[in-house]
Amino acid sequence: MPELRKDPIVGRWVIIAKERGKRPSDFVVEKEKTKGGFCPLCPGHEYTTPPEVLAYGRPPGAPPNSPDWTLRVVPNKYPALIIEGDLWKEGEGIYDKMNGIGAHEVIVETPNHQETLADIPPERLVQVYWAYRDRMVDLARDHRFRYVMIFKNFGQAAGASLEHSHSQLIALPIVPQLVREEIKGAKLYYDYKERCIFCDIIHQELQQNIRIICENEEFLCISPFAPRSPFEMWILPKRHHSDFRSVDDKQFRALAEIFSEALRRLDAAIPRCPFNYVLHTAPLRESYLEHYHWHFEIMPKLTRIAGFEWGTGFYINPTPPEEAARFLREITL
Amino acid sequence: MPELRKDPIVGRWVIIAKERGKRPSDFVVEKEKTKGGFCPLCPGHEYTTPPEVLAYGRPPGAPPNSPDWTLRVVPNKYPALIIEGDLWKEGEGIYDKMNGIGAHEVIVETPNHQETLADIPPERLVQVYWAYRDRMVDLARDHRFRYVMIFKNFGQAAGASLEHSHSQLIALPIVPQLVREEIKGAKLYYDYKERCIFCDIIHQELQQNIRIICENEEFLCISPFAPRSPFEMWILPKRHHSDFRSVDDKQFRALAEIFSEALRRLDAAIPRCPFNYVLHTAPLRESYLEHYHWHFEIMPKLTRIAGFEWGTGFYINPTPPEEAARFLREITL
Repeated sequence: MPELRKDPIVGRWVIIAKERGKRPSDFVVEKEKTKGGFCPLCPGHEYTTPPEVLAYGRPPGAPPNSPDWTLRVVPNKYPALIIEGDLWKEGEGIYDKMNGIGAHEVIVETPNHQETLADIPPERLVQVYWAYRDRMVDLARDHRFRYVMIFKNFGQAAGASLEHSHSQLIALPIVPQLVREEIKGAKLYYDYKERCIFCDIIHQELQQNIRIICENEEFLCISPFAPRSPFEMWILPKRHHSDFRSVDDKQFRALAEIFSEALRRLDAAIPRCPFNYVLHTAPLRESYLEHYHWHFEIMPKLTRIAGFEWGTGFYINPTPPEEAARFLREITL
Repeated sequence: MPELRKDPIVGRWVIIAKERGKRPSDFVVEKEKTKGGFCPLCPGHEYTTPPEVLAYGRPPGAPPNSPDWTLRVVPNKYPALIIEGDLWKEGEGIYDKMNGIGAHEVIVETPNHQETLADIPPERLVQVYWAYRDRMVDLARDHRFRYVMIFKNFGQAAGASLEHSHSQLIALPIVPQLVREEIKGAKLYYDYKERCIFCDIIHQELQQNIRIICENEEFLCISPFAPRSPFEMWILPKRHHSDFRSVDDKQFRALAEIFSEALRRLDAAIPRCPFNYVLHTAPLRESYLEHYHWHFEIMPKLTRIAGFEWGTGFYINPTPPEEAARFLREITL
């Protein structure tokens, strides 16, 4: 059973996932995974994953875990958290820990092994966001969970261990500290101004028009004012809502279009640029917040986190966001 | 002039260091630096660095920036912050920024290009800590500065761009957010218990005796209860003090001994393991704190920061600290 442990000084949680089985002798620095070979996420290999929890696109009547899907969600074979069991919390002197209850799932975004998210046309990409939403709605029924974190690692440098295009989901028994801090920061602003800070950011960005990468009727894609890495991008819905579960079909189609364009622009600027993205959305049990605004943050992996960042929480970024936005915006797709 | 920008939601600062001159076309993912070749930190090449701000070990009367030093501190040739100028702060609508005033220095720990910190015998290693202290004392005289962050990146994977053994120092016009949060967490505990949390950690670790790697009269080296990465190590002084500038010669000698032993144990476990370390010490203008306790945190670079960590602030660590401590402790040096 994995264990969650809390640093008693700064309150940072760590998942000690010893089931993943790394012993000192297993550590090989910057080991590269071999490419090619057997892919457990490809159609026809469904038997190699745990039984699926969701699939789209199969003909009516086709059995679960058979081929002919267009998107598939499966439990992670090497989960950081375990779904079975009751939640317990306990102390060890001044320290706090709890057992590692949670869900860890893999969203297989396409049946085509070679296809990246930037290659998937928007009319198929939309099902990725439907899958995120469907899984959040389902996992919210489990009263042990407080938050569903949805993220993607693309490329080895960004932490992907499988080449086949996929994102991940972790359902957690607590609201993560960074989510709490973001909501708290937005609340502070709301208490002072009685306006959502994200709505104000959208307003100012549209007025200044120097950090916009692309936009459509429903969404704005910008280089944020204080980006942690070169070519960081935020995708913000123009309509205020705190909870990703509230998105409707029209918005999902517009989201697929802008997300696809953003990733194609990044790929044109830096071919196969490794990146992480994270869906920022309200906690499961506090979903209607006037002061919070769901969005995606896309972080290209182009600089290293080193001692200075570890110590300060500052980031050093060599590329002003106005330059990055102009460069990405002016690319001819 | 570099610019400091603050994220308006979470308050995270970013240094936009465009002087470093990266343009979109300059980004090559995971580029490896060539080893060998000309080293600007080696004796005889003093003319290639900016003029030194400190040197130890030269014979009396020898001129600055000549060879025959045992340790040398020079301004960084590609600084993230610039030392000249007055501090200004200004808004841009809802956003905040200030100019990038600060010092960025390189501490060259040894004249021997091949020597790592683990190779330097404690009787010479002690001068590294003296250099940290001397530079902090000197930079504290500049009233623009609020914090001096001292850190080391060892190995390419940990962000080192030069092979020759060195650490770095950045003097900042603000107290970094992570430092503030650590002090705030320690203060919360102190307000409740009227005891220093670090002193209590030392007390509990000595009693439990399951996460101790090594110790001497003055210091304790442990695997912390909630480590972010496998083989993370903290070096804690047994005597309470919040400010590294208060350390005396006896403590420095004991620090060199335990630091050397910790690094030799890590190197024996994982040869040439890349790591970052950070000196945690009180801000320059609030140095006598009952609730804070200076220490070093050493973070081996063995896992990747990916989407989950970006989103949650949680870390996934496959190695329980009790196992890591036992492994490191039982190595025969």
